[in-house]
Amino acid sequence: MTFETQQKRVHQHVDTLLQAQISGLGDHAPTLKSAMQYALLMGGKRMRPFLLYATGEALGVEEQDLDAPALALECVHAYSLVHDDLPAMDDDDLRRGHPTCHIQFDEASAILAGDALQTLAFEIIVNHPLSDFANQQRIELIRILSRASGYSGMCGGQAIDLDSTNKRISQSQLELLHSKKTGALILAAVEMACVLSPNITDDSKALLNKYAQTIGLAFQVQDDILDVVGDSAILGKPQGSDQQQNKSTYPALLGIEGAQRYLSELHQEALQALRALPYNTQVLRSFTDFVIHRNH
Amino acid sequence: MTFETQQKRVHQHVDTLLQAQISGLGDHAPTLKSAMQYALLMGGKRMRPFLLYATGEALGVEEQDLDAPALALECVHAYSLVHDDLPAMDDDDLRRGHPTCHIQFDEASAILAGDALQTLAFEIIVNHPLSDFANQQRIELIRILSRASGYSGMCGGQAIDLDSTNKRISQSQLELLHSKKTGALILAAVEMACVLSPNITDDSKALLNKYAQTIGLAFQVQDDILDVVGDSAILGKPQGSDQQQNKSTYPALLGIEGAQRYLSELHQEALQALRALPYNTQVLRSFTDFVIHRNH
Repeated sequence: MTFETQQKRVHQHVDTLLQAQISGLGDHAPTLKSAMQYALLMGGKRMRPFLLYATGEALGVEEQDLDAPALALECVHAYSLVHDDLPAMDDDDLRRGHPTCHIQFDEASAILAGDALQTLAFEIIVNHPLSDFANQQRIELIRILSRASGYSGMCGGQAIDLDSTNKRISQSQLELLHSKKTGALILAAVEMACVLSPNITDDSKALLNKYAQTIGLAFQVQDDILDVVGDSAILGKPQGSDQQQNKSTYPALLGIEGAQRYLSELHQEALQALRALPYNTQVLRSFTDFVIHRNH
Repeated sequence: MTFETQQKRVHQHVDTLLQAQISGLGDHAPTLKSAMQYALLMGGKRMRPFLLYATGEALGVEEQDLDAPALALECVHAYSLVHDDLPAMDDDDLRRGHPTCHIQFDEASAILAGDALQTLAFEIIVNHPLSDFANQQRIELIRILSRASGYSGMCGGQAIDLDSTNKRISQSQLELLHSKKTGALILAAVEMACVLSPNITDDSKALLNKYAQTIGLAFQVQDDILDVVGDSAILGKPQGSDQQQNKSTYPALLGIEGAQRYLSELHQEALQALRALPYNTQVLRSFTDFVIHRNH
């Protein structure tokens, strides 16, 4: 199976399950329900679920046990995009080539849809069937997801980002920002797969965490590069928006060639971590290449 | 101990624990941390924790086991107030006599503080020590909290509220709205105490749920009445704001005397549920009187 086929398969699988979650909601608040559906299903690369399934497959975890954390990750990711796009935050009208949630609906609905999607993430983990696993695993999944999403993770990263706009910050500060803002959920995808693999060694866990941290950083560096050299039509959002908003980015800090060199180093580091693992990591290797070479 | 003394004791106890939660956060995002602290600790009646502790006390639950759900309820309640006050929602500048979070900080920080407070609620339940209880109880607490907070509960209620503004809605629609918007978290307080009481009968649970639903509704009816006849200085917010925003309220639907009569009926129903319980419910009785007769 080619990587594109695998990616498409995960995409369809996740979309089907997310649609089922939305369909399972009552009809008492139709606008909110539509806004949640719009935010969850208007596209996206499903990168976090892909990484989770690929890691789980390498570790021999049953695919259906990965569904709950995969959906929960997408709910948190989707909510964060809806809130980040709000006028008071990044004020973006376009996301993945479509109107953002507050443009398609209104600001109040977008705020509420984000709030309810965050809750839904935790609801899915406590309620979704898990074949062989005990409550201890659910607790661990919630612990990982909450740490990755809140002040210590994604929200904290977004706050650092807001504080850093119009300021020149160091590479280590930029790395802290991204390790929280986007890195924490990417790391969570790998950590969650490990929770569901009872016999994994500490060494393998450490290598997978290192891999996830490296790939999370590489994802962001490539994101920043695409904002400079990418094509708005392929990106689904205006190219050059970081610079316009005076955001701290890797190209701004290292120059475009410096950023591309750094991306290559991260690529090699990620592959090195995979090579040291005692598993078949072919899908993870393809995923790594995809993250590095993607054009949107 | 008088009711006021008990109330003050719960208030101080909860504030101390909430402050400890905030102090335990890292220092990487100081504005966000301050905004979360402001939202959590700028006052409030701590009604949900009080109800939780009072129910737990009646059921013989260890006080320290009630701390995690009490704090989690306050985090969700505080986050909902921060988001409800935003310009795109109710656009309130004043809350409990203080500037609302987005006035004291800014809109972006208020959105993020709300988001991170919601996550913190779930983090507290998975991480806070619980003396005798197993993971099964934590899972149940998270199940209750997520159902009460998200689309099926509080967020759904707020969405119905937004959809109902400038419309005339029926009493049953108004009751659905409030059973979700404010009722769900009040019910959750009682349900969470029941989870921690392993020997409670189904009959007692049903009576306590009935009590919580009645008191939740009574709380809202009194809230609507206070908005008409209350004193802005005591309320800590402008009196008459519901009418100004053309909100659906009980006085608008039943007239002020009709609303007061309805409140009396709910008062009697709540006390009747308590009388049928095989526990010492003295504190819950005092709490009931407080909810009905409060002037803010």
